[in-house]
Amino acid sequence: MNRQIRLKSRPSGMPGPANFEAADAPMPALADGGVLRRTLYLSIDPYMRGRMSDAPSYAPPVGLGEVMGGHTVSEVVESHDPGFRVGDIVAGYDGWQQYAAGPGKDLRRIDPASPPATTALGVLGMPGFTAFVGLYDIGLPKEGETVVVSAASGAVGSVVGQLAKVRGCRAVGVAGSREKCRFVVEDLGFDACVNYKSDDLLAALKEACPSGVDVYFDNVGGAVLAAVLRCLNRGARIPLCGMISEYNVTEPPGGPNLRPLLVNRAMIRGFIISDHVDRFAAFLREVTPLVQSGRMRYREDVVDGLDAAPAALVGLFEGRNFGKMIVRVGR
Amino acid sequence: MNRQIRLKSRPSGMPGPANFEAADAPMPALADGGVLRRTLYLSIDPYMRGRMSDAPSYAPPVGLGEVMGGHTVSEVVESHDPGFRVGDIVAGYDGWQQYAAGPGKDLRRIDPASPPATTALGVLGMPGFTAFVGLYDIGLPKEGETVVVSAASGAVGSVVGQLAKVRGCRAVGVAGSREKCRFVVEDLGFDACVNYKSDDLLAALKEACPSGVDVYFDNVGGAVLAAVLRCLNRGARIPLCGMISEYNVTEPPGGPNLRPLLVNRAMIRGFIISDHVDRFAAFLREVTPLVQSGRMRYREDVVDGLDAAPAALVGLFEGRNFGKMIVRVGR
Repeated sequence: MNRQIRLKSRPSGMPGPANFEAADAPMPALADGGVLRRTLYLSIDPYMRGRMSDAPSYAPPVGLGEVMGGHTVSEVVESHDPGFRVGDIVAGYDGWQQYAAGPGKDLRRIDPASPPATTALGVLGMPGFTAFVGLYDIGLPKEGETVVVSAASGAVGSVVGQLAKVRGCRAVGVAGSREKCRFVVEDLGFDACVNYKSDDLLAALKEACPSGVDVYFDNVGGAVLAAVLRCLNRGARIPLCGMISEYNVTEPPGGPNLRPLLVNRAMIRGFIISDHVDRFAAFLREVTPLVQSGRMRYREDVVDGLDAAPAALVGLFEGRNFGKMIVRVGR
Repeated sequence: MNRQIRLKSRPSGMPGPANFEAADAPMPALADGGVLRRTLYLSIDPYMRGRMSDAPSYAPPVGLGEVMGGHTVSEVVESHDPGFRVGDIVAGYDGWQQYAAGPGKDLRRIDPASPPATTALGVLGMPGFTAFVGLYDIGLPKEGETVVVSAASGAVGSVVGQLAKVRGCRAVGVAGSREKCRFVVEDLGFDACVNYKSDDLLAALKEACPSGVDVYFDNVGGAVLAAVLRCLNRGARIPLCGMISEYNVTEPPGGPNLRPLLVNRAMIRGFIISDHVDRFAAFLREVTPLVQSGRMRYREDVVDGLDAAPAALVGLFEGRNFGKMIVRVGR
């Protein structure tokens, strides 16, 4: 049987376990040329909240009764595709289930030994790639500039700050606990980190950014964005990657006053990583050696068992994860 | 004597006549190599509100007791500069006074016959140049796209829409009265115009932009920006030129919800025209023939006498002007 987690109902506000249902489906049928694989790891990411909703967005929602989508690392268990052999470890988008079957073109074979396969869901997967494109292609950081990133201990933010350091920038994180801030500075090598839950946000930002803010990589929106807007340097760039602070509200809240954009000739640009697949090879070329050498560090928050996925997603919105959220699906 | 209008006090909220004082100063002294000129026309523009305030902005404020600044068209009455002769008509930044003296490098000689000299303050001056840079260099309109502009009957907005038509775009204005909307469509050739005071803004915008909004040239901020954000197409660009809706508030208001930027991969960029002087020659090259041929139309709202300048500025913030606000300074 193929254990699955399906979307049962659309949440209003914060999602909960009641929005999901577990089910045992028959093993998927393997068509000619297809690849059958068993899920080893499932990635849990904030964008999933959008797919649970039927509000218009950049991607269609998951249908009610359908298996929740998600990036996966899997092991090939049967293959009719000459490009894949049984035992190969592959990255794909197989969703919240134990098994999936389909064409090999949807899969990317990875070397599970170095770096570890789970990095294909984080620092060397979609989150790391998002950091790379948002910072380098939209933020356009220059040596000596100050880069601020919110959700700094998370899968995307942790890469943003470390890439900023690679480019010779001052990297300042914003995170939601003293432990996360300590990790960001001591383990990841950021220059400073502001705890948005306890610090006077604006005062702490100004202290952490004595030369102002040139790039703000925004994962959260809300009060952090409003505070950073008050610290902008002339010509600042704000890649808008996510707005997790309002994914679970029922009414769209207001936004920040935008006059600082005018006064500082600054720019906010939203981006969606799926528009930038042509940059994926460049990303892997630059970041894989950084991970292999240990210069680029990462932290994973792994929970066990497919049935733990709903709670893991809710935990993400409550900031309870600490590092890249991953479900070990196991057998 | 040299009649002047000086800044007497800094306004809180809407400026009024009490913030200014008229005075008769001695004629300015003419240094070696200098040019003495008599002001014919003074331009009244929204940015002047910022110069009356000492809040941090992109330019230093006018000092208390100092002559208010402003773009001018003047006649040379005495010249020690071989580049200028008595009787020459020049564009400069001489401010709210009858006479000014200074080096010829601050002046640009204009042909007063064709087009009329007052166009150097509007369609062929700073406002037209602002439209050109904001639309073409930041908005990057492509043929067939929809361009929306607020304050559409004003000095900047009227040029934005007409340049959009030159580039083969659909041009949609937003203005504050039925008469202004009629002018924008019938005289300037926009495809549609929304009256933000009487129409259901969002519904009217959607009707006027059946294919969505690709470029929004924003002069006002506030409710119009919030409504346009809900009509954006993928990859939309928003040159942020002004926020006249909040120049006279005492507390910075909140802004619009920015999630549409994310979903639509859209961009807002603030700009200040003084950063783009290298584009001025290209602007004159493109727009002067359009004005001369009558393809680019403009409307002026001229009041008489330097002492009328304070009321003219207040009228601008109340939307009482209809077209480019100009003071004929006269003798």
